[in-house]
Parts: sequence; C-alpha cells; structure tokens
Amino acid sequence: MTVQEKTIQRTDLATWAPHEVRQAIRDRRWTGTTHGAARGRLQANLVVLPQKYAFDFLRFCLRNPRPCPVIDVTDPGSAEPTVAAPGADLRTDLSSYRVYRNGELTDTVPDLLDLWTEDHVGFLLGCSLSFDEALDSAGIPMPHLRDTTSRVSTFRSNIPCVPAGPFSGPMVVTMRPVPTNMVVRAVEVTGRYPLAHGAPVHIGDAADIGITDLENPEFVTGDRLGEGQTSVFWGCGVTPQAVAMAARIPEMFTHHAGHMFVTDLALDGTPKP
Amino acid sequence: MTVQEKTIQRTDLATWAPHEVRQAIRDRRWTGTTHGAARGRLQANLVVLPQKYAFDFLRFCLRNPRPCPVIDVTDPGSAEPTVAAPGADLRTDLSSYRVYRNGELTDTVPDLLDLWTEDHVGFLLGCSLSFDEALDSAGIPMPHLRDTTSRVSTFRSNIPCVPAGPFSGPMVVTMRPVPTNMVVRAVEVTGRYPLAHGAPVHIGDAADIGITDLENPEFVTGDRLGEGQTSVFWGCGVTPQAVAMAARIPEMFTHHAGHMFVTDLALDGTPKP
Repeated sequence: MTVQEKTIQRTDLATWAPHEVRQAIRDRRWTGTTHGAARGRLQANLVVLPQKYAFDFLRFCLRNPRPCPVIDVTDPGSAEPTVAAPGADLRTDLSSYRVYRNGELTDTVPDLLDLWTEDHVGFLLGCSLSFDEALDSAGIPMPHLRDTTSRVSTFRSNIPCVPAGPFSGPMVVTMRPVPTNMVVRAVEVTGRYPLAHGAPVHIGDAADIGITDLENPEFVTGDRLGEGQTSVFWGCGVTPQAVAMAARIPEMFTHHAGHMFVTDLALDGTPKP
Repeated sequence: MTVQEKTIQRTDLATWAPHEVRQAIRDRRWTGTTHGAARGRLQANLVVLPQKYAFDFLRFCLRNPRPCPVIDVTDPGSAEPTVAAPGADLRTDLSSYRVYRNGELTDTVPDLLDLWTEDHVGFLLGCSLSFDEALDSAGIPMPHLRDTTSRVSTFRSNIPCVPAGPFSGPMVVTMRPVPTNMVVRAVEVTGRYPLAHGAPVHIGDAADIGITDLENPEFVTGDRLGEGQTSVFWGCGVTPQAVAMAARIPEMFTHHAGHMFVTDLALDGTPKP
C-alpha cells in the first residue's frame, strides 16, 4: 500500500520528509494543521504582499528579528521559496490560507492559485512550533505538542517594534510556563534557533512588558502558569501580520493558524538533505 | 588637551568609542582607514543603490549570507543606520567613498553630501576586519592587523551565488593562511560571527573552488601560504560590489577599501552601550 492509498494519520506525518508532507497537502490528502509534521524541520509563517510593500516589510522584519525571523523571500511573482524548499509552491503547499483586504479578514481559502499574481511577493518567517520541539526534547514540557486542548497564550506587549515604512506597532509575544529551575535551559535551547524566534524577550512579571491580565490574552488563551513555574515570553510570528493589518495594506494573504509551511531546512536554518 | 586639539594617531583609535571615531571622520580629523579602530565593534562595508534596485539587492544578500551578511538597511532617502548606529550619517561618517556608474569606477570622494538623494538606500554589510580581531585574539596570527605591508589575498571563486533580480555571479573569497593545527579553532571562532562572514566556505586546495593560481589573486595579492599552514577561505564583502558592478547598475556608491563604517554593535551584532 502506498502513502497515496491509505488514510493519513497525524502521527504518520512526523516521520515523513518535508516534500512528502507538502505533496500530501498539495494533493489535498492532508488538510489539517502541521503540528508535529516532518519533525526536525523548520516550519514557517507565510505572509504574501503586493510588491509595492515588499521592501518596507522586509526592512521591518530585519529590524525586528525576534518576532519576525526571515527564512526566505520570493522573487516578485514567483511562488517558489528557493532557499527554504526549492521546487515547492507557496500557492498550494499550505493546507489553509487567510485573505485580508484593507486590514480585515475577508476569506479563508484552500489555495492561492486564483489569487497569486505577478505582483505578489511571499515571505517565510520563523515560527515557534519549531523550537517547541527543541524545548520538549530538552526536558522542558510543551504540553500543546501532545494534548490537543493545550494552547500557548499569545498577548500584545508594550515592547515597540522598530518601524519601517508603513509598518509599526507593538510586539506580539507568546508565554510558555517553564519550571523555574529550567528557565536558564529554556534560554539556552531557544537561543540556538534564531530562525524560530530565538531567545526569550522577557522572563518573569508580565506587567513589565505591559501585559496586565495574564489570564486573558488578546490573541490566544492558553496554558496557565502553575506552581513552581515562571512565565517566559518569546517574540511571536503573529507580530508581522498584526502590523500589516494595522497598516491596512490593501491585500495580504497569510497561512491560517497552525497550517504552516514545512521547509526543507533543519531547525537551525541549515540546509538538510 | 582635548581629542579635537591633538593630532590623531592610528593607535589612539583602538580605544575610542565608535561615535568618537565617526565624529573624527565626519570632522575630517581622521581621513585614514579604520583598521583597528574602536576595537570590539563590528565594522561594515557600505553599498548605496537607487531604490529601484534595493529589494532585489537585499534578497541577493539574504540568499548569500556568507559573503553578504546584512547588518542594516536604511529607509529610502535616509542616511541614518538606525539599527547599527542611531544618529550616524552614512554620507559623512566614512573617510573615503567610491562612485560607480554603469559598473565603472568614476570617482573617489570624501563624502556623499552632494550625491545622496531621496532615491538612495544604504546597505551595511559585514566585513572581515571584525573577525580578524577575534582570530588574532584566539591565537591565530593575523599579521595584517599589525604589519601595514601585510594583506589578505582576495580571489574570484567558482562558487555560484544564489541570484536575485539582476544580481548574480561567483563568490569573491579571501584566503588566510592558518597554522594547520589551528584550522578547527579558526572555524569555531569565526562561526560565532555570522555578521562578519561567519565560518569559512572552504578549507584546503584552492583548485576545488576554481582558484588556479594561489599566488596571483584577481583582487588583492596578500600573504602567501607558508610551511605548516593550510589555506582557509571565507566569503568576502567584495562579492556584492562585484555583482552590482557586473549588473551595470547605473549608479552605486561604496566605501573605499579599508575605509569602513564603524558601527555601535558588538562583533556578534548585539547592541553595545
């Protein structure tokens, strides 16, 4: 029985090569999220913008590498990410996309074949799914990797991003409860993966970065801080989307939350055969 | 006696703060090269291009991080590198500039005040002066840091750069003779400084990367390989200039060799007070 013939289970995806995952998504054999798919490979957020905004947006990302680590940028009109996954197609190789017009969500679509024009540029930005795996392997439990009811809380902080052109605004951050005696290890482990947001941006009191209610995040409500745990905050890939929405860019396509692009790259960004 | 009143010696510059070095250059009190200036700070190559080419050039650099590590990119029309040195001015804070038109060198000028327009974008790219210091401190002698007759040989290799827009061509590399028993250390030390070209691109036989005559480099003829030494090759900041010249971009300004921009950043690219 070939891969094509049987029904795909999420657990199957873990050991698949990145191009096999992308092909299954392209063929609509897998339409779910990419949590745990192609383990050990860097997954990425997608942002697609009209060429007019591309240079400003790229400067914004380069100036704010913690929330917006740049993995790849396509040539205008091309949907092939030549660095992250030569031969892949950003119009079809993610399982769900969001369409925003003038900063408002207007549609959710299964591909971008009818929407992507010669005028579009695709950006692949690091996502924390990748370092969650590294944290978990290092003995710092990441329950959301196993328990589908577990989530990572996501907040708007008061840390200002460095602006570029029309793009500006506060950094969106995620919070993971970390056993207090493993906070140093969490910094060390994630610091090795700058393309997956890298080291934390804050440790400890949420109020220090303008978060007044840790129980009620603006974006995602996730696991609460428990006894003997310290709140650790990382830059979040929602930041560039939030900033592009706030700038009311006429047209923007992104991945749908959890439906990431699976690159060929190792977690540290190096090419991997 | 203040700094302004006395004649500046090169050895004075080593202990100066980056903004003091830049101010001395801006005031024309220092017109020499920046070898050894503001020790411990990242120095940078400068490339200035019309806005029309900026997004293509930035993608080229991001796709070729060994020869073209991006430190900072200005807003179009602005000469302030807000990441690398807030308040600095790329039109005046280097001691000598080159002007290229349609790929040909047409002028050498002491500042860009009359040339920089609202249409220009400045790129600061990593330079190996910074990691030479780290290598020397690690016990791998870098004679050119002390002996003004010593040079680093610079060659055109056959390693292809990943193209972007009109920019394409082979990687330019530098060769440093390294005591054979210290080659591993040289990789480790430079690997820590990706913004200063990072780890080598090749170790050993020059012919493997298309260099047929190690004694006669195309760009700079420098120190020869001695007994008990291995040739180690790194990506070189001449690459983006060579590629922009080959593309016959109508107008490009760069630093003049050795007259680098001194950033506020530590050698690893982190902000330093």
